Amino acid sequence: MATQFDPPSGTRDFLAADVDKRERAFDVIRSVFTRYGFEPLQTPAFERLDVLLGKYGDEGDKLVFKILRRGEHEASGEADLALRYDHTVPLARVAAAYGSRLPTPYKRYALGPVWRAERPGKDRYREFVQCDLDTLGSASPLADAEVLCAHHDALAELGIADFRVELNSRRVLAGLLEAFSVPAALGPGVLITLDKLDKLSPAAVTGELAERGLPADKAADLVRAMTAPDAGEQIRDKLKKSNVGSAGLDEVDQVLSLVVPQLPPGRVRFTPRLVRGLSYYTGPIWELTAPGVSGSMGGGGRYDHLIEQLGGPDVPATGTSLGIERILSLLPDAGQEHPSRLDVAVTVMAGHLAAASFGLAAAARAAGLRASLYLGSSGKLGRQLRWASDQGARWCLIYGTAEDEAGTVTVRDMRSGEQDAVPVGDVRGYLERAAGTERP
Amino acid sequence: MATQFDPPSGTRDFLAADVDKRERAFDVIRSVFTRYGFEPLQTPAFERLDVLLGKYGDEGDKLVFKILRRGEHEASGEADLALRYDHTVPLARVAAAYGSRLPTPYKRYALGPVWRAERPGKDRYREFVQCDLDTLGSASPLADAEVLCAHHDALAELGIADFRVELNSRRVLAGLLEAFSVPAALGPGVLITLDKLDKLSPAAVTGELAERGLPADKAADLVRAMTAPDAGEQIRDKLKKSNVGSAGLDEVDQVLSLVVPQLPPGRVRFTPRLVRGLSYYTGPIWELTAPGVSGSMGGGGRYDHLIEQLGGPDVPATGTSLGIERILSLLPDAGQEHPSRLDVAVTVMAGHLAAASFGLAAAARAAGLRASLYLGSSGKLGRQLRWASDQGARWCLIYGTAEDEAGTVTVRDMRSGEQDAVPVGDVRGYLERAAGTERP
Repeated sequence: MATQFDPPSGTRDFLAADVDKRERAFDVIRSVFTRYGFEPLQTPAFERLDVLLGKYGDEGDKLVFKILRRGEHEASGEADLALRYDHTVPLARVAAAYGSRLPTPYKRYALGPVWRAERPGKDRYREFVQCDLDTLGSASPLADAEVLCAHHDALAELGIADFRVELNSRRVLAGLLEAFSVPAALGPGVLITLDKLDKLSPAAVTGELAERGLPADKAADLVRAMTAPDAGEQIRDKLKKSNVGSAGLDEVDQVLSLVVPQLPPGRVRFTPRLVRGLSYYTGPIWELTAPGVSGSMGGGGRYDHLIEQLGGPDVPATGTSLGIERILSLLPDAGQEHPSRLDVAVTVMAGHLAAASFGLAAAARAAGLRASLYLGSSGKLGRQLRWASDQGARWCLIYGTAEDEAGTVTVRDMRSGEQDAVPVGDVRGYLERAAGTERP
Repeated sequence: MATQFDPPSGTRDFLAADVDKRERAFDVIRSVFTRYGFEPLQTPAFERLDVLLGKYGDEGDKLVFKILRRGEHEASGEADLALRYDHTVPLARVAAAYGSRLPTPYKRYALGPVWRAERPGKDRYREFVQCDLDTLGSASPLADAEVLCAHHDALAELGIADFRVELNSRRVLAGLLEAFSVPAALGPGVLITLDKLDKLSPAAVTGELAERGLPADKAADLVRAMTAPDAGEQIRDKLKKSNVGSAGLDEVDQVLSLVVPQLPPGRVRFTPRLVRGLSYYTGPIWELTAPGVSGSMGGGGRYDHLIEQLGGPDVPATGTSLGIERILSLLPDAGQEHPSRLDVAVTVMAGHLAAASFGLAAAARAAGLRASLYLGSSGKLGRQLRWASDQGARWCLIYGTAEDEAGTVTVRDMRSGEQDAVPVGDVRGYLERAAGTERP
């Protein structure tokens, strides 16, 4: 039940375990992208309203969070800024602003939150992280293959074992429509329906195609060709009869020839039904899916005119977008039953011993360990040991009156319960040795 | 001059060199905080408007970026959400929402952007990173000393060599007013003026105190005591005559007894004039400053009632806030004249050799190196070598017709210009050895 203390609808608070899981995943992704020679770009959370509006269609415009003007203009009820809706429009703006001061090609990644006023639901948030990888300024299929492989490697290094890369080309889709003589006006609708072959039965798809106005025999032909056991070959034969279809096949085969040798066997396949909704793609397109997982783990393609349409320079471009929130939901949670916040917990047995305890924590940190003191008000050892255990501490340093007189610290191993008396000056070295032997 | 492609006023685009510098600094800070046992908390970029308004005073409320309602409510011109103005109000909300499910004490850090509609200026932005370290639920001076030392260590590990910690207590300030019989109504104004002793001459401060209504002889007494060569002792003697002043001195001395042994000699000092503007502090307060640098590198103090005032539970609290943008501006920029984007640049000499080149880049990545292919359209070696040099690559892999026939790769050392012919299958091992011997 929502309370007044919940974060706004569709947003989340991330406490330590969530932050750690997310940041670990982001670090893996960043390191893969860096290895491919992509560099980071960070743009502001908001853009001027006119930079964003009109770029996402009418439906998209409605989902933009707009920021009210300030001061004397606030009463106008008008907005002049808006929260970032994706990373592509800011990329186009940066490409326009920096021009030739950017490297050519410009290979950049963006990893950060975007905001959309969608109705919140399972795995659908109003604030969510989007992760984009794009190359501006190269028309080469090598650029397509590079972003695709980087996306692939990121999933693989995150530990996602069983996934597929489905590859197609916008030109293959155009060739399909031509080869099956689909009337131009029906084209987009037919493609949208065909893309449902991964979810609906062939009969249902045939029916939907007929509803869209495609003659029943053509609809049946098309679906039969797409679902036959030798669908790949049938479609290839058909496409060869169309110029644009042939060009599309060449494009697909070029990318396949680059990526197949680098990926596990069977990982990537030509998927002629794949559409990737967005109309701005102009060449190869792809999607990364996992069997049994609804929705994709991202995808992308070549979009040679979009950057110009978005206000940037006229450059060829290709990119991929990782479905980060989906990917994160597939990763295992860290075992949370007993989180470890500290390696070393330090007791504070009496006020006049506090400075010595404070110094012991500093010595443990100097040994590279996470260390902190008991900050509560109880002077009882049992209570403080319970705190040390709650923190998941590996060792507890006990420094009471007896230790103070002896010039030693009692180092308690919180797993075995064994205790050592260690001279105060040797604590750092003792902990370094103890932690060193623990490390693999 | 601002163009239509600039980011909104007061915000910045961060390209690779900036992102790298900033993230490196953030990593250092996070690692110090983690070593002290603090854990991360990430809250949404926006909060419900009623959570934020009324928490920052009238002036603060005006600087909040408000988000327009959406859909049918957009036309109302009303706001229902607002961008995060700091990390403290969200902390209070989270403390209220999670209650006892948070660890006790709750030691958390927040490192992320906040937004304020201030007039932009030098080092003053509308989107800037704020970094807060707070402990909720402990009244112990150990908690104050811990956040203070963590702040100190973060600056030290960032490489800031010459800085000072100025320490005071709100109770010392109350004691000063009592000891010098400053009328209660004049108290806050007198403190604000006294705090200018680090910038204005004693005479100027005396004058300003008189303007505020303090009798001239009292003003002169006060300034004399604060600026005498033995000011520390004089002030201590005065404070001992006041109950609250004595309590403040005890508080200062307790923190000093904890932190002085852990910090370099002379790093921290009792600074009775220090006020730290914000009225919510209740105990020790501190500020980190560098000689010759205007403005501080952050500060903080104990604020035992604020969390409750902000809508959270009634818990004692202490915290420090790092002036990150200021700190970043003090760190040296990485040498940018020749940024290195790649370790290994791979040529693509002909279309039919592209797949082999693509595989060579993958081999270099498998060796843990940053590697990419030439994505341009020129087939000329000279052009591609220039690209490799522009990328700051350490090695260039050349794979042309001759290499293809011989089954080797030409590995060019981009510093010495020396070249080796390496069998294709040995490239990864060759690069691992070459890179291994480079590493310190």
